[in-house]
Amino acid sequence: MYAVIMAGGEGTRFWPKSRSKRPKQLLNIVDSDTMIQATVRRLKGLVDWDHILVVTTEHQRDALLEQLPLLSPENLIVEPKGKNTAPCIGLAATLLHKKDPDDVMLVLPADHRIEDDQVFQKTLRAAAQLAKNENGLVTIGINPTYPATGYGYIQHQQLVANIDGIEAYNVKTFAEKPDIQTAKRFLQSGDFFWNSGIFIWKISKILQEIEDSLPELSTGLNRISKALGSEKEKDVIQKVYCQIKSISIDYGVMEHSRNVFVVKGDFGWNDVGSWEEVYKISPKDKHGNAVAGDAVLLDSKNSYIETNNLMIAGIGLEDMIVIQTPDALLICPRERAQEVRDLVDLMKRKKLDQFL
Amino acid sequence: MYAVIMAGGEGTRFWPKSRSKRPKQLLNIVDSDTMIQATVRRLKGLVDWDHILVVTTEHQRDALLEQLPLLSPENLIVEPKGKNTAPCIGLAATLLHKKDPDDVMLVLPADHRIEDDQVFQKTLRAAAQLAKNENGLVTIGINPTYPATGYGYIQHQQLVANIDGIEAYNVKTFAEKPDIQTAKRFLQSGDFFWNSGIFIWKISKILQEIEDSLPELSTGLNRISKALGSEKEKDVIQKVYCQIKSISIDYGVMEHSRNVFVVKGDFGWNDVGSWEEVYKISPKDKHGNAVAGDAVLLDSKNSYIETNNLMIAGIGLEDMIVIQTPDALLICPRERAQEVRDLVDLMKRKKLDQFL
Repeated sequence: MYAVIMAGGEGTRFWPKSRSKRPKQLLNIVDSDTMIQATVRRLKGLVDWDHILVVTTEHQRDALLEQLPLLSPENLIVEPKGKNTAPCIGLAATLLHKKDPDDVMLVLPADHRIEDDQVFQKTLRAAAQLAKNENGLVTIGINPTYPATGYGYIQHQQLVANIDGIEAYNVKTFAEKPDIQTAKRFLQSGDFFWNSGIFIWKISKILQEIEDSLPELSTGLNRISKALGSEKEKDVIQKVYCQIKSISIDYGVMEHSRNVFVVKGDFGWNDVGSWEEVYKISPKDKHGNAVAGDAVLLDSKNSYIETNNLMIAGIGLEDMIVIQTPDALLICPRERAQEVRDLVDLMKRKKLDQFL
Repeated sequence: MYAVIMAGGEGTRFWPKSRSKRPKQLLNIVDSDTMIQATVRRLKGLVDWDHILVVTTEHQRDALLEQLPLLSPENLIVEPKGKNTAPCIGLAATLLHKKDPDDVMLVLPADHRIEDDQVFQKTLRAAAQLAKNENGLVTIGINPTYPATGYGYIQHQQLVANIDGIEAYNVKTFAEKPDIQTAKRFLQSGDFFWNSGIFIWKISKILQEIEDSLPELSTGLNRISKALGSEKEKDVIQKVYCQIKSISIDYGVMEHSRNVFVVKGDFGWNDVGSWEEVYKISPKDKHGNAVAGDAVLLDSKNSYIETNNLMIAGIGLEDMIVIQTPDALLICPRERAQEVRDLVDLMKRKKLDQFL
């Protein structure tokens, strides 16, 4: 079994801790390990080190090799430019196809949090078995616990398998991030899972599906395949990436395929998409405050404070996020944590490059 | 004419910029000069350098001499312990009495902001003339512009003099800091001034009034007077200060005296009592934000931001105060700026001495 870890994200929502050269997956947001380190560690016993590929962009390359000293440089795939998940997965599949087209590949985001590694591995094993037996596209669905508007959803149909206690279903539809009313409806129906962004399939199968649904990408990948190992390899990848369009695997492939399964993942999952998510999974004091570092709070509650070298003193803070790094500090209401991305855009426009 | 500048305050409401060894009067809160420097500069042409006494406590001594290099050390009076304004003024008067009992002394807080220095001097000259002519206790009243609850008030009676355009009145009563309803009533009546804490009287007169209203303090001051210049001086001051009670000149003397005048001060006065006051007198951008230092604000308004070396990024800040120093940062709603004092108390209890 192979694993492809997608580690190209920019993670601007974790500013000021995340920067363009130090995005979320390279940070220890919720753990002593960084998120990419935790993602790799989680595969121990399931996938061999030399079967793990990490796909990233040039400016994260060095930091990734530093954080993953056991990763051999040839297993680090550098995309010339982030083009969303379909090209990323296609490129990795093209490389792996030369090694073993009939083997299974796992596709994993680099920056999610999993609580129970054992159940996680058990689930992936069941998903891999299903992918092999059915030659299908398998995704992991998470039982929703609240009407999240920040996740995509997967509507399942009938149970098709129960592998060692892990349930697998046919997929009816994929749904984009819903509004709150729709999310509530999804939750009530009992038919929907959160889309975890974790996929399992045979290498040959995903390339076939890309050929069917994204012929342009497929043509590009074939050009890359022919150049692999030659001195033109880098050039060809560069050229192909200039031409292909940016598209997600969900939208570009999964929604069009007739052979899609969802395996229920019950391992405690969180995509840790914003500081608000970090607050939610952090231990809190009796006032609902989660504090990492030095802080003194007067009449404050339900806030998340993370300091570097300053003593942060707050009066009357309520539902606030305060994050300090050596050169910057963010103050933001928890309910506006998504707008940290807009703040980073604003700083880009103001040419505050040293803080990006 | 002599001037006595009371510079013993702790100014905890300006934390984190103010610290026990660097209180408000030693800071440049609203000016390039520190507040004590501005207070002394404001007297130029009115009082000679060698007629200016500064009263302070031991741990501010060195910083004061550094900030006021023209002040001779013998004009810096060190109180063993802050005991409010009556002992402070009594001690200064006792020292000055040896030099010239019939001359006038001005008493000035070290940490107020005056907009028009010329009118200020003109007002003090008129007050000094009144103090001499009437041998009265003269205080400066400020025409209130809003129903402030943070100031004491002075109710005046009939006009007794108009000296060169400066009006002087008899005083009916002194009122402590009122609640908002009372403050509104004071404002509407037109009979009330804010109590500026600036006093003018003959040296012999204030010592006489202290003898009448605060006999215990008077006894102590007499003991000090006898020891002045001897080697016992410091010891005697120390002993007297251990025994005398802490009391303000307003409460201890002014309210009991029958010979009190208030001179109307129309020179633009602000006691700069909290960060909220600093916000009020600072220039603001079109969103009502006053920013000193590096900040990037998204959808934020009516806030005061002061940074040292960090880039402060705010989302949705409204009516907030954010102050950063090299080792600490305060976040506080503007309307709770008075509670910074409570915050400092909390830090004292938590033994966070390095930040005090």
